[in-house]
Amino acid sequence: MLSFQCDYNNGTHPEILRRLVETNDEFLPGYGDDKYTASAKEKIRKACGREDAEVFLTVGGTQTNKIVICSLLNSAEGVVSATTGHINCHEAGAIEETGHKVLAIDHENGKITSQNLRSYLEKFYDDEAHDHMVFPGMVYISHPTEYGTLYTKDELKGLSEICREYELPLFLDGARLGYGLESRGTDVTLEDIANLCDVFYIGGTKVGALCGEAIVFTNVKPPKRFFGIVKQHGALLAKGRVLGIQFDTLFTDNLYFEISRHAIEMADILRDNFRKKGYEFFIETETNQIFVVLENSKMEELKKDVLFEFWERKDEKHTVVRFASSWATKEEDVQKLNELL
Amino acid sequence: MLSFQCDYNNGTHPEILRRLVETNDEFLPGYGDDKYTASAKEKIRKACGREDAEVFLTVGGTQTNKIVICSLLNSAEGVVSATTGHINCHEAGAIEETGHKVLAIDHENGKITSQNLRSYLEKFYDDEAHDHMVFPGMVYISHPTEYGTLYTKDELKGLSEICREYELPLFLDGARLGYGLESRGTDVTLEDIANLCDVFYIGGTKVGALCGEAIVFTNVKPPKRFFGIVKQHGALLAKGRVLGIQFDTLFTDNLYFEISRHAIEMADILRDNFRKKGYEFFIETETNQIFVVLENSKMEELKKDVLFEFWERKDEKHTVVRFASSWATKEEDVQKLNELL
Amino acid sequence: MLSFQCDYNNGTHPEILRRLVETNDEFLPGYGDDKYTASAKEKIRKACGREDAEVFLTVGGTQTNKIVICSLLNSAEGVVSATTGHINCHEAGAIEETGHKVLAIDHENGKITSQNLRSYLEKFYDDEAHDHMVFPGMVYISHPTEYGTLYTKDELKGLSEICREYELPLFLDGARLGYGLESRGTDVTLEDIANLCDVFYIGGTKVGALCGEAIVFTNVKPPKRFFGIVKQHGALLAKGRVLGIQFDTLFTDNLYFEISRHAIEMADILRDNFRKKGYEFFIETETNQIFVVLENSKMEELKKDVLFEFWERKDEKHTVVRFASSWATKEEDVQKLNELL
Amino acid sequence: MLSFQCDYNNGTHPEILRRLVETNDEFLPGYGDDKYTASAKEKIRKACGREDAEVFLTVGGTQTNKIVICSLLNSAEGVVSATTGHINCHEAGAIEETGHKVLAIDHENGKITSQNLRSYLEKFYDDEAHDHMVFPGMVYISHPTEYGTLYTKDELKGLSEICREYELPLFLDGARLGYGLESRGTDVTLEDIANLCDVFYIGGTKVGALCGEAIVFTNVKPPKRFFGIVKQHGALLAKGRVLGIQFDTLFTDNLYFEISRHAIEMADILRDNFRKKGYEFFIETETNQIFVVLENSKMEELKKDVLFEFWERKDEKHTVVRFASSWATKEEDVQKLNELL
Repeated sequence: MLSFQCDYNNGTHPEILRRLVETNDEFLPGYGDDKYTASAKEKIRKACGREDAEVFLTVGGTQTNKIVICSLLNSAEGVVSATTGHINCHEAGAIEETGHKVLAIDHENGKITSQNLRSYLEKFYDDEAHDHMVFPGMVYISHPTEYGTLYTKDELKGLSEICREYELPLFLDGARLGYGLESRGTDVTLEDIANLCDVFYIGGTKVGALCGEAIVFTNVKPPKRFFGIVKQHGALLAKGRVLGIQFDTLFTDNLYFEISRHAIEMADILRDNFRKKGYEFFIETETNQIFVVLENSKMEELKKDVLFEFWERKDEKHTVVRFASSWATKEEDVQKLNELL
Repeated sequence: MLSFQCDYNNGTHPEILRRLVETNDEFLPGYGDDKYTASAKEKIRKACGREDAEVFLTVGGTQTNKIVICSLLNSAEGVVSATTGHINCHEAGAIEETGHKVLAIDHENGKITSQNLRSYLEKFYDDEAHDHMVFPGMVYISHPTEYGTLYTKDELKGLSEICREYELPLFLDGARLGYGLESRGTDVTLEDIANLCDVFYIGGTKVGALCGEAIVFTNVKPPKRFFGIVKQHGALLAKGRVLGIQFDTLFTDNLYFEISRHAIEMADILRDNFRKKGYEFFIETETNQIFVVLENSKMEELKKDVLFEFWERKDEKHTVVRFASSWATKEEDVQKLNELL
Repeated sequence: MLSFQCDYNNGTHPEILRRLVETNDEFLPGYGDDKYTASAKEKIRKACGREDAEVFLTVGGTQTNKIVICSLLNSAEGVVSATTGHINCHEAGAIEETGHKVLAIDHENGKITSQNLRSYLEKFYDDEAHDHMVFPGMVYISHPTEYGTLYTKDELKGLSEICREYELPLFLDGARLGYGLESRGTDVTLEDIANLCDVFYIGGTKVGALCGEAIVFTNVKPPKRFFGIVKQHGALLAKGRVLGIQFDTLFTDNLYFEISRHAIEMADILRDNFRKKGYEFFIETETNQIFVVLENSKMEELKKDVLFEFWERKDEKHTVVRFASSWATKEEDVQKLNELL
Repeated sequence: MLSFQCDYNNGTHPEILRRLVETNDEFLPGYGDDKYTASAKEKIRKACGREDAEVFLTVGGTQTNKIVICSLLNSAEGVVSATTGHINCHEAGAIEETGHKVLAIDHENGKITSQNLRSYLEKFYDDEAHDHMVFPGMVYISHPTEYGTLYTKDELKGLSEICREYELPLFLDGARLGYGLESRGTDVTLEDIANLCDVFYIGGTKVGALCGEAIVFTNVKPPKRFFGIVKQHGALLAKGRVLGIQFDTLFTDNLYFEISRHAIEMADILRDNFRKKGYEFFIETETNQIFVVLENSKMEELKKDVLFEFWERKDEKHTVVRFASSWATKEEDVQKLNELL
């Protein structure tokens, strides 16, 4: 069976496994006080070009989103998100569980546009009853988005400017950040993100790790007692080394970027193959996710040999499905898939 | 440096590492839908002697406590705990974060006695104003307790009876359960716990795993939409395999029990050594934690070669410290420590 | 200055004042245990034709909505509401503060249609990822809606049937219920609401009282420990008599219905006047709220003598404004306003 | 039946009723934007000697405590309270419902002593594991306390100094503040409270009003978006006039202080009567609450003619009961009670 279902059905990068084995007999302080965590944080700061950044390692994406968001918001504030945002759709109400509304606004291909954001904010403050409404307290975006699309540097700048004008922290969910940074078409670097956003996270789970996300605060300070907040939300691993060693490995010799680039190369070949064979794209993407429209009969046929994800019904006879590559995708599998198309 | 500081400063059991390496190239469904997780659950049910049990794998102890507790309580209810309970002291307010009060009652060596529990419950319902108070909604105990002590079977039965009389789920925190079950003096088995408690968890993090706890519902049903509640609290790993493979390994060929027994054997030797050399025990324990009173000068001397944990000041000249063994403790290290005593 | 701004800028009905004065020297038990509260509840049950109903008196609407909703939902569930629903727009995030998402769906003139509700529910359960989403756990409607519109009996029945099919409690916000029940065009009675909904509240604040809402559980039981939940949310008045006396008065000799009818009569005259003079209605309503489109110059002119509420800008030259009558509206003021139109 | 049961089983002061009647026909803006609320706030600021204070009117005590506390605390912080504090015992978990732990410390007659507070704080920061614990984030006291006792000015100063040293807001619950300020033995004035505390509230419900409490922020700013937080917690009355008119009346011509003094005079007579007849006091108080030990037979006899409150069983033959006076207590009733003693 070929697998193009998602980017988290694989194990972990062999180099991470090697480091876990290598360090297994060491006694190390718990709760993130170990040397590998310290080293990982230092390497991440360097990679971001921000020695002043503060880095925290957590276990998963939903957890990370809820901790960052709830700790930066005032009780009467909510977080602005695209209607398609992961926090608005697929986190089982994790943000609301912390007491905050997700203020969903329209999107374009999964992205918040400066125009939509500004228009929402202006309308909010123009509304005479806004004191009875949930105040926008921060802005959440994802890069790549849930649709695999990317912000351009100009788009990010535009959002960043509006956020600074309204004093709203800009938070970027980078669950698949590596795949965004290594996309051939992007002009956005990790340094750009560190400078234009106020806080973001670098996804490990979907980019080579067993688990783990790295929160980076650059232009806002971590909230007071952030360690306690992380602990309180059950996101503090007793064996913090598990996260430290993984991120230390990912940020040694550019591993994070190299394996991301591999995923993109695989996706690009796959995308070309679909295009050459005349398949219709549901949405144009440049990252590791490809959304294509399949005839239902073709879909059923492919299912026999390939794992891929149902996205939505298009019409009676067609379905939108998603193919995803990852750091673990093998070129031979891409070729095999091509033969089946 | 010898390490007797805690039971979570080691890596993971080599057999777990081996299985992680062995399965690394497999593509497996996410979110706990993989075959290793299914197998782990089945083995845990068997080990508990309860084929009807429902098992969920989570990442860490604080997370597990908060999810189980908040999902079983009604809004107006709190959880009864010993004042020394982990949830009352060292979880950064995780239970309160979910909206519930920890109803702390007196303990004896870290344990809730039937007498204290009954007396608290009677006093509560006798109070004419109890409708304005937080209702006891469940009872939390740990086994071993935070002091390394153990309930006897009769003590557990006593608590269980009271809980059933008052319709309060009895929840047992088994972060160090293996060490409790393998203690030489105990008469409590895993089956006993499964039958006398309503829900409990089997600790992995401190007993051989990198991370992971296994929640077992035996005499209460998991709350409605429990999967969503786990997800909402950021406790659902995308790569559920990480937990599944670890617990599958721990519950294959009795590994969990064997490595726990090793830790107890090491602790027993250590305890004997302290006793032979005339050290005073702060509290008598039978598990992997040993609390001894050291002269401050001796403490400073030992610190040069041994890692152990400060517990509390006893008086001007003496300090209570904790030595902990684990599955990873080497007999030669126990001997080396003995020479330093 | 004429006032048609809203239905809560008046005092209280003189009969309520009289009863407050009359009973002022009595010593009465606190927290709702007084005889007037008991009498009020009994009268409300009678008016609803449901002797088995359970009634609770609370202070205000937002408070009432949040208590009912959070106490009926499971942690992983949210409440379905029209996008225009009060809980979704103008309660400062009160629902989310309790940990629950408002699941906003499209509306027609402020109403949820059976079609929209069913379509939302079907789509939800068809979504393969719905276990990662917030489950619909109840349905919230208001009658009259925020737009002053009313459900027909058939529409209510339709929603009720779907709710029962999906086991979702149907909750009706009746902040302005009296004005809905006395509308000339409605075929919905209080008994209908009691039978078709599972829980609803009868608004006092906007219909003659100083403050106060009466929650009526008919087809669901009040959640366990509901008294404690009310207290915990700060909604339990020490002097429960304040609410008891008011509702006892409102439900004596049909006062609630009579004063509501007066408001409707005043609104009907006003509506006719607008119609006769050729004003455009923004939305057709049959209750005490009238939405008309004014030329901006006319609006400025009227502002000198009349209080009314800005609703939204229509275009460069026109604005939508709201005129509201209430139990306190005087016929002579309606006539005076007519002269100014 | 004579009533000495509590200070909230009466109606409202006649002057308040008179003002409610007098203003009933006025149309006034909602949500606290009316002139009476503005006037009440101004008078309260003057009475506190702090023109810079910010005043908010809310409905009841539990509501007020929860709003002030949750809005001043960081997520990882709790509120320090005496174990006997109202928030720790009789608010149905309202504080925990907002996500925060009540950090209960020992009391002396219901009061927190400087020694206990300092000792708790020092021990907390000395604890090596305190990063895993709930941080003290503010201090809650009540004056009078739940036992009717009062802080001296020196005691308040002592607490205030410690709080400032540790940067903890000091919050005083003044549900019965009038009775404390008018006690003959006190040396604490309203100005003292305004200067030594950071935020406090002036109780209306138990001191002449139908309902209502006035929060006064003096040495901390109200939290950002406090209006929204009040609304979100269901504490914002649509008819804010109800609270405004009441407090405006209470703070006109010293009414609040005069009626409080009357209650104290009645309590003092009552206390003397008990003393002269040789009754034992459970605790010495100087306010409107008197705790005496009754023989059970005497208690049963008194119950036929007098309402008073059960406090706790003393022994087989004796019970502690509470007699409370209020602004509404009549001197003739005090004499009648004397005859029954």
